[in-house]
Amino acid sequence: MRTLFTAEMSELADDLAAMARHVSVAIDRAGEALLTQNAELAQQVIAEDAELDAIEETVDERCVLLIAQQQPVGLDLRTIIVGLRISAALERMGDLAQHIAEFARRAYPDSAIPASHTETITAMVAASKKVALEIVELIEGRDLNVAAGIVSDDDTLDELHATSYRLMLEDGYTATPQEILNIALLSRYFERFGDHAVGVSRRIVYLVTGDHTGGRALI
Amino acid sequence: MRTLFTAEMSELADDLAAMARHVSVAIDRAGEALLTQNAELAQQVIAEDAELDAIEETVDERCVLLIAQQQPVGLDLRTIIVGLRISAALERMGDLAQHIAEFARRAYPDSAIPASHTETITAMVAASKKVALEIVELIEGRDLNVAAGIVSDDDTLDELHATSYRLMLEDGYTATPQEILNIALLSRYFERFGDHAVGVSRRIVYLVTGDHTGGRALI
Repeated sequence: MRTLFTAEMSELADDLAAMARHVSVAIDRAGEALLTQNAELAQQVIAEDAELDAIEETVDERCVLLIAQQQPVGLDLRTIIVGLRISAALERMGDLAQHIAEFARRAYPDSAIPASHTETITAMVAASKKVALEIVELIEGRDLNVAAGIVSDDDTLDELHATSYRLMLEDGYTATPQEILNIALLSRYFERFGDHAVGVSRRIVYLVTGDHTGGRALI
Repeated sequence: MRTLFTAEMSELADDLAAMARHVSVAIDRAGEALLTQNAELAQQVIAEDAELDAIEETVDERCVLLIAQQQPVGLDLRTIIVGLRISAALERMGDLAQHIAEFARRAYPDSAIPASHTETITAMVAASKKVALEIVELIEGRDLNVAAGIVSDDDTLDELHATSYRLMLEDGYTATPQEILNIALLSRYFERFGDHAVGVSRRIVYLVTGDHTGGRALI
């Protein structure tokens, strides 16, 4: 088990877990707001993103202090720097949840999603929520089997993203420019959310196993 | 003048400059490919993104080695970590140029841009090229006046992004779903390119001046 999870760095691990839980709540609420036209919930996601940014800043400070105080080298140093990359990715996942909430709020009282895409976007919301919960589980429980689930859910998000665009580009498809714009961006945000989740997952696996194979590319 | 630019860290500064030059060439060619339906040039941008990824890996390795070998603390340490953030942002700017090139290639032999948006996207290409050149100039010449130009060009990109969406959402606007999808994403990519440029610029100003005001948020 790698150094990030030894007692000295447990606060750092706790902060990363707090960030992951925050992201999980944010994507859950953003998805709910999008699917049920809940402007209040959307507003909450948007307002609370600042909290995630604040935790990220704390994590980054802790990483810098850990390096300065412990003067780590080799894998210990890489571990902390990988922690910085994880915090940046989680912060970005929070931004994406916020962007999704902004679409829900802007469309209110209408739905941001045309009926043609309800099924696909509902499935994207479900896969995003699942992947966010798995990230929490991976950080808190360090069960590496969860990592495979994250990759699989990202594949699902990629397929749904392709489906979403394909539906829109079929002959005879009609929708307003606003609807097409919404689908183009919302679908992209969910797809990016999955990409970041896989990046976080690979880095956590690296931290837990200390497996340096491919470690360079994770820094 | 901050530590990154002392002799010991000059290779790191050289690598960041090389990354910035690569991004500048990539956005120049991607914009040209987009505006002139040049599939060959688009393909070149896509193929060459791997080189940027390789330089990023080198930069990141150099940062880790600098920390391990020099055991820096305080501002010296922050400087190197800010270098890691700059390399990540430049790599992302290269990805955005690649995405733009992918649209040009996919639409070939047609244009990816409907006539309604030629003017706006042409202006976005120009502002993106300008901002990328300014990043090179800022890294190579350390003339802090350039930073103000970068912020101003990012404002231009934000305005053009808003114009692009507004045009598309005007009553009576008609375009194919593919055209709307293209505009929705291309416009977003240029806007994000500007955002990253401002992030890079703020961090370089921090490295050059050593001004720690707001430094926490830059790490």
